[in-house]
Amino acid sequence: MLRKILALAVLLLASSVTFAKDASADEQAIRALDTAWSHAAETKDLDKTVSFYADDASILPPNMPIATGKNAIRAVWAQFMSMPGFSITFAPSKVVIAKSGDMAYEIGTFQTTVNDAQGKATSSVGKFVVNWQKRDGQWKVVADIFNDDK
Amino acid sequence: MLRKILALAVLLLASSVTFAKDASADEQAIRALDTAWSHAAETKDLDKTVSFYADDASILPPNMPIATGKNAIRAVWAQFMSMPGFSITFAPSKVVIAKSGDMAYEIGTFQTTVNDAQGKATSSVGKFVVNWQKRDGQWKVVADIFNDDK
Repeated sequence: MLRKILALAVLLLASSVTFAKDASADEQAIRALDTAWSHAAETKDLDKTVSFYADDASILPPNMPIATGKNAIRAVWAQFMSMPGFSITFAPSKVVIAKSGDMAYEIGTFQTTVNDAQGKATSSVGKFVVNWQKRDGQWKVVADIFNDDK
Repeated sequence: MLRKILALAVLLLASSVTFAKDASADEQAIRALDTAWSHAAETKDLDKTVSFYADDASILPPNMPIATGKNAIRAVWAQFMSMPGFSITFAPSKVVIAKSGDMAYEIGTFQTTVNDAQGKATSSVGKFVVNWQKRDGQWKVVADIFNDDK
């Protein structure tokens, strides 16, 4: 029993000591995921774009109701990607990790382009907050909300 | 040394055991803050409304740029509250706490009313994501983003 308690103490101490290192590794992991996610959306890879969300995630787009679950999120992205001339890129400006390394949020900016009624490409700039949770050791998007700057 | 390690082990174990209880207490604390925050906004108490934000918080309103810091957030809320017939209520539908109890996010809905050009009250419904961080033992809003459903 004593040996078990000692082993547990060492384990817990070790995990406390690695918090700082993990936070940085977690931030790097999330930023890498964002790069891959933005690339998937930019290249209109619907399956890949949706793969970054947790099964119970929600997307909260402007001028549409909240959509929860992968099928509903897929339908939202399919609608975006079907808009004539649609293009998007996004990147985080700030990533903050919980001490426990199970939750994170990020603030970032996006640029979208769609064709207007005359077929002319029109760009707009906006901002987003994405919340992440670690699920089975893998960071997944659990909430994704955004709006335009103008 | 052995006694110190044992004491530490007991302390760490005890803190692990209370995670579940704390998460529930944290959720209750955040929901109570939301109730007070919504009431402050509804009654156009600008100082009180702004007091729920951390000093380095950001608000990300639709059709406006991101505003960071209490002065900038205050200016956004002052602008909202100065709109003729402005009224708002909001409440979380989901609150999720990090295991470390230092970070949380919530998803919720709001209802706003403003007068249209003819002075007629017009209501709209929307959704939000608010991120919280515990600062000196007190939950504070660090990111606040929202948009309309229609």
